[in-house]
Amino acid sequence: MQIGMVGLGRMGANMVRRLLKHGHDCVVFDVNPENVAALVRQGATGATSPDDLVAKLSPPRAVWLMLPAAITPKIARDFAVKLSAGDTVIDGGNSFYRDAIDLAAEFAINGVDFIDTGTSGGVWGLERGFSLMIGGPVAAVQRLDPIFASLAPGAGQGIVADPVTGTAPMGYLHCGPSGAGHFVKMVHNGIEYGVMAAYAEGLNILKAANAGMQNRAADAETAPLAHPEYYQFDIDLPAVTEVWRHGSVIGSWLLDLTAEALKQDPDLDQYGGRVSDSGEGRWTLQAAVETGVPAPVLASALFERFSSRGEAEFAGKVLSAMRNAFGGHLEKAK
Amino acid sequence: MQIGMVGLGRMGANMVRRLLKHGHDCVVFDVNPENVAALVRQGATGATSPDDLVAKLSPPRAVWLMLPAAITPKIARDFAVKLSAGDTVIDGGNSFYRDAIDLAAEFAINGVDFIDTGTSGGVWGLERGFSLMIGGPVAAVQRLDPIFASLAPGAGQGIVADPVTGTAPMGYLHCGPSGAGHFVKMVHNGIEYGVMAAYAEGLNILKAANAGMQNRAADAETAPLAHPEYYQFDIDLPAVTEVWRHGSVIGSWLLDLTAEALKQDPDLDQYGGRVSDSGEGRWTLQAAVETGVPAPVLASALFERFSSRGEAEFAGKVLSAMRNAFGGHLEKAK
Amino acid sequence: MQIGMVGLGRMGANMVRRLLKHGHDCVVFDVNPENVAALVRQGATGATSPDDLVAKLSPPRAVWLMLPAAITPKIARDFAVKLSAGDTVIDGGNSFYRDAIDLAAEFAINGVDFIDTGTSGGVWGLERGFSLMIGGPVAAVQRLDPIFASLAPGAGQGIVADPVTGTAPMGYLHCGPSGAGHFVKMVHNGIEYGVMAAYAEGLNILKAANAGMQNRAADAETAPLAHPEYYQFDIDLPAVTEVWRHGSVIGSWLLDLTAEALKQDPDLDQYGGRVSDSGEGRWTLQAAVETGVPAPVLASALFERFSSRGEAEFAGKVLSAMRNAFGGHLEKAK
Amino acid sequence: MQIGMVGLGRMGANMVRRLLKHGHDCVVFDVNPENVAALVRQGATGATSPDDLVAKLSPPRAVWLMLPAAITPKIARDFAVKLSAGDTVIDGGNSFYRDAIDLAAEFAINGVDFIDTGTSGGVWGLERGFSLMIGGPVAAVQRLDPIFASLAPGAGQGIVADPVTGTAPMGYLHCGPSGAGHFVKMVHNGIEYGVMAAYAEGLNILKAANAGMQNRAADAETAPLAHPEYYQFDIDLPAVTEVWRHGSVIGSWLLDLTAEALKQDPDLDQYGGRVSDSGEGRWTLQAAVETGVPAPVLASALFERFSSRGEAEFAGKVLSAMRNAFGGHLEKAK
Repeated sequence: MQIGMVGLGRMGANMVRRLLKHGHDCVVFDVNPENVAALVRQGATGATSPDDLVAKLSPPRAVWLMLPAAITPKIARDFAVKLSAGDTVIDGGNSFYRDAIDLAAEFAINGVDFIDTGTSGGVWGLERGFSLMIGGPVAAVQRLDPIFASLAPGAGQGIVADPVTGTAPMGYLHCGPSGAGHFVKMVHNGIEYGVMAAYAEGLNILKAANAGMQNRAADAETAPLAHPEYYQFDIDLPAVTEVWRHGSVIGSWLLDLTAEALKQDPDLDQYGGRVSDSGEGRWTLQAAVETGVPAPVLASALFERFSSRGEAEFAGKVLSAMRNAFGGHLEKAK
Repeated sequence: MQIGMVGLGRMGANMVRRLLKHGHDCVVFDVNPENVAALVRQGATGATSPDDLVAKLSPPRAVWLMLPAAITPKIARDFAVKLSAGDTVIDGGNSFYRDAIDLAAEFAINGVDFIDTGTSGGVWGLERGFSLMIGGPVAAVQRLDPIFASLAPGAGQGIVADPVTGTAPMGYLHCGPSGAGHFVKMVHNGIEYGVMAAYAEGLNILKAANAGMQNRAADAETAPLAHPEYYQFDIDLPAVTEVWRHGSVIGSWLLDLTAEALKQDPDLDQYGGRVSDSGEGRWTLQAAVETGVPAPVLASALFERFSSRGEAEFAGKVLSAMRNAFGGHLEKAK
Repeated sequence: MQIGMVGLGRMGANMVRRLLKHGHDCVVFDVNPENVAALVRQGATGATSPDDLVAKLSPPRAVWLMLPAAITPKIARDFAVKLSAGDTVIDGGNSFYRDAIDLAAEFAINGVDFIDTGTSGGVWGLERGFSLMIGGPVAAVQRLDPIFASLAPGAGQGIVADPVTGTAPMGYLHCGPSGAGHFVKMVHNGIEYGVMAAYAEGLNILKAANAGMQNRAADAETAPLAHPEYYQFDIDLPAVTEVWRHGSVIGSWLLDLTAEALKQDPDLDQYGGRVSDSGEGRWTLQAAVETGVPAPVLASALFERFSSRGEAEFAGKVLSAMRNAFGGHLEKAK
Repeated sequence: MQIGMVGLGRMGANMVRRLLKHGHDCVVFDVNPENVAALVRQGATGATSPDDLVAKLSPPRAVWLMLPAAITPKIARDFAVKLSAGDTVIDGGNSFYRDAIDLAAEFAINGVDFIDTGTSGGVWGLERGFSLMIGGPVAAVQRLDPIFASLAPGAGQGIVADPVTGTAPMGYLHCGPSGAGHFVKMVHNGIEYGVMAAYAEGLNILKAANAGMQNRAADAETAPLAHPEYYQFDIDLPAVTEVWRHGSVIGSWLLDLTAEALKQDPDLDQYGGRVSDSGEGRWTLQAAVETGVPAPVLASALFERFSSRGEAEFAGKVLSAMRNAFGGHLEKAK
C-alpha cells in the first residue's frame, strides 16, 4: 500500500524502514534533505516539498506525520488544504488528543479524514514493531489496516485477532473516535513516567544502603541516622537489576533496558540527571484533575522531572527564608 | 541435596514442588498436617514437628522458613537452638532485613549460619522459577548453591553465569552480607507497589474518559468540567491493556497479568478495592526517610493502599470541619 | 458609593451587609426573592430582575457578581449587554482566571470594564473584612477603590498604604491586568488546600498514636506493628490544637477554627469525611503543570479530596486484581 | 523556682532570659563558656561543668536540656547518674519521642523523673513565649508548673485554664505519659513542613505566572506551552503575601514571616534553596507508615527538602538513561 511519511527523525525513519521491509510504497519528506536521501537509498520515494509529496501520492492519499507536538497542528492544516475528499492525514506523534478532535472536525468539512495514532516503541520499533493506539472514523482506519498491521509487532508472526480484544494481540488497536488514540497514548506515557520513577527511586534507595558507612554531621540542622549499623551494604546495581529480570514480579522491558544501561555504566556518570518531559505526562495529569481522578503517583513522577531541572529552586528559597525567620536557621552551604 | 522446608503455604509448597522436580530431597513441616500430607504424596518426606524435621535432616542441615514476617524471628530462634554448628537457617519470607542482621549475629555465636533470601515470583514461581535475592556468609551461600540454582528460573535452561553480574542471569544473586538479601527484596517490593500504582492510576483515568457524558452538578461545591466535549470516550480496558503488551514501552509481566484479569472481568466487580500491604513497602519508605532519599512515588503508592482501606477518613472529617468553619460549606451527602 | 450586587448567598449577602455598614448604597438581586427581601430589611435596595437592577443604578454603573463559577461567564455576558460604556462588571466569585481575560477583552469592545476580584474570608468576612485580590484596568479599579476599601479588613482601622506593598496592609491589592486577581486567588486556594491537608494528616497521625493498644492481625496480608510499646498514647486533640494556637510555629487562622471545631465535637462525628473541591485547587495544579513548576504538596492535597469521595476505587480494584493474579492474595473483607 | 539549663544556643538562651524575666533562679551551663558568661551578665548563675551545675541546684533539682537530638540521650544519662531520687531531667529539644520513653523507664529505677517537652516558638519565643507540649509523670509535671507557665505565652497575661482544654490556652499542655510531649511536637513539626511547603509551592507558581513572556524551545524534548497568552502576569510577591495576611483564609504566623522576608528581599537571592530537615519530619512519616495513616502531603514536603539538597540526582540519572535506552533521547544540557 502507498503512504506518505512526513518527519524522518528517529521514529519516522524507522517506521518507513519497517514499512519498506513489509513491501509498502513510501513517499517521504523532511525539512532536512539528508534524511530524505538516506531513506531513498533504502527504497523510499523522495519528495522535495509537501506539494511534491502530495503530487507523488495516488488517491485516496494517506499522509502520516511524525513531528513535534508543538508544530503538528499547523503542518496538518497545511497538508489538509492540499488534499481532497477521501484522503487521510495521520498524526503519529505525541500530540495533544484535543487537537485531534478539533482537526478531525475541521478536516471533515472537506471530506478529508484525520486519524490520530499514538505510537510507542521508541528506537526499537523497527525491530520489535510499534504498539499503535488509533482514533478516528471507522472507514478510514480500516482502509489503512495494512499499514497499521505492518508497523505493529504482530506483523508476519502468524498472530491472529482475538474474539475479545480484536487486533490488540497483534499490537494495534482502534481505540475509538477521533482523539481516542492520542488519549490512550497520553495515558500510556503518564503510566510510563510513573513506572520509570518507581524504578529510579528504588535504585536510588539501594544506592544509599551504605549510608551508615559515611560520615554524618551531628548538628541541629542535620537529622541523625539512628542506626548506621543497618546501612552497611554496597549493593551491585547492575547485578541486582539483572536478577530482577528473571522471575521477579517487577520484570519489564524498561527493567531490561535499565539493567543493560547499568552494566555499561554502573554509576551512570554520562548523565547529569536533568530529565525532560514531552507533554503527555502533563496532559495525563490535566485529564486526571479535570475528571476528578486521584493520580498522586503519576503527579509525583512528573514533578520529579520538573525538580530535576531546577524548577523547585525558588520554593526552596522560600523554605530557607522561613526557617531563618522563625528559627534563625542559616542555610547550610553545599 | 537435602533441605527442610517449614511453612507450606502458597509460596513454600510451590518451592518444594520445584525442588522435588529438580531431584532434591525435601523434608517438610507445617502447622497444618494436610499441607504436609499433600506434599508427601508428591514425593516429599513429612515431619510431624520441628524436632522431627530436624531429626530427619543430616548434617550439615539446612532449614528454609516460608512464614509471615510477624512470626519468623521467633520460629527462626526456635530452630536455631535445635541445630548445631555448621547448620543453616534460611528465611525466604518477606521479613524485615534488620531482623536478618540481628539473627545472623545471634546464631553465629553457636556456629549456625543464617541466610536471608528475598523470594519473588508469586504463585507462578513453580512454573517460571523464583527470583532470589540472597544475603549472608559466603560459605553458607555457596553450600546451598544447588538449592538456589534449582529454585531460580535459569534451572535447566542452559543459562550460564555472566562475567559482570555472576549468577544474576540465572535468576539468583548473592547480594551481600546478612540482611542484604531482604534489603534488596524490600526495595523490589517498594518498586512493585509503585509500578502497580502507575498502571492502576492510568487505568482509572482511562475509565473516566467518558466523564463528559455524565451529568454533573452545577453548584458552588462542585468543580465545573470545563470541556465535556473532550471527555466522550468509552475506552475498552481489556483491549487497551492487551495492545500495550505488544511493543509498547510499558510492557511488563504485571501488565500481562492485568490484561488477563481485565479480560476475565472488565469491571473487576469481584473486588472491593481495599488493598493490603504486607510490610516491605513500609520498610522501603523507612529506609528512604532515614537515608534522606526522596521517594514520592513509592510513598504515594503506599499511602493509596492505606487510603483504600479507609485510613484517611478522620483526615477527611477534619477537612470538612474546616470548610464548614470558615466557609459554611456543608458536606455533600454521598 | 453605589453598587449592584448579584448573588446573595453566604458570601454575597455578607459583603452587602459590610458595604451597608460603611455607608454604601447597595442595589441587590438574587434568583431567590427571600434573599433580596432579607437585605432590603437591612437597608439595601431590592431589584426584581437583572434589568431592574441595571435600571436602579446610575452611570457609571458597577455590578458585582457573587455566583458559582460554572454559571458566572454566562451571567456576566447577560449583564454586559445591558450596560453602557464606562460601566463595570466585577466578578468576585471563584472563577477561572482565563474567563476573566477573555471576558475583559470581549466587554472592552463596548467600553464596559471587567474586574476580577478574588475574595477570601468566608462567612467571617462580614466581621473581619474580606481579603481582596484584584485584576483589571487601572482606571476602573481606582474608580471602585471606596468599595474595595470598605470590604477589606483595614476599613476604619486607621491602617494606611505602605510604600512597598501599597494597599496590601489594608487587605486589598490590585494584582495586575485582567485575570491577575483570579490567578492570585486561585493560587491562594491551592495553598489553602495544602495547608488544610497538612493539619488534617497530622491530626490523623496523632489519633493513631494509640495503635499499639489495638489488636492487630498477624497474617501475610497485614504489615506487623514492630513496636506497639511506642504507640500507647491517647492524645487529646482539642487540647493539642488549642496549645498550638499559643506561641507555636504553626499558629494560623485555620488552626483557630480547627481547635474550636474539635472542642465542639472531638471525634467530628457529624462529618463523613467526603471533601468537596470547588475548582481553584484544580486550576492551580493545571497552572503548575503547564508552567513546569513542581507542586507535589498541592497535588497530594487535591487528590486526597478526590479519594475521600471514592474516586480511587477502580484503581484499588486494579491493585487487588494484580495481587490476586501474581500472588494469589485474596482481598481482605472490611 | 530554681532550674538548671544546659545548652545555651538560640533556644536555650532565650528560654533562660524569659525565665529570668519572670523571676526564676537559673543555673546555666554550656560547652561554650561565652554563652554562660552572656547569661550571667543578665542575672543567671553560671556553672563551669555539669557537676558544678548539679552542685549549685537544691533538691529536688530540675535540669533542663536544650541540645541537638543526636547527643541528647547521652547527656541525659550523664546527668541522671549525678542526680538523686526526686530530681528531674527535662529534655526540651527536638528529640525522638521513643528515646523519652526509654530514658524515662531507665531513670525511674533510681527515682529520677524524666520529662519530655516539645518546645515551639523559635527565636521569637523570648518575646512571644514558647508553646510547650509536655510528656511525663503527673507529679513531676505539676512540680514544674511554674516554669512551664512562665515560658508559655500566657505568662502574665491573665489567661486562665479552660474547663475543656486545661492549660492549653496559656500555651502549655501536659499531653500524656513519657514520650507524649515529643510525639505531639514531632507531629507539630511534620505539619509545619507541610504548611511551609504549601506556601512555597504556591509562591513558586505565582512566580511562573509570566511563563508566557519567556522564550520556549519547540522540540520533541520540550512540552509546549499551549496558551502563552494566559501566562502574562508579573506578580508582586511581597504585596501578595502582605494582602493575604489581612482577612484571607490562609493567614498565619508563617505567612507573616514570609511576607516580611519577601519585603526585605523579593527574590530571596541570599538563599540557595538547599533546605535542611532536622528529624521530626522524618519521624512523623515513620509514625504514619507504621500506623498505616496516609500522609502524602507531609511526605511530599519532606521529600522536597531532600531533593533541594541534590538527593534525587541518581534517580534522575536512571530516568535519563532509560529515556536514552528506549527512545534515543539525549539529555538536554543545562
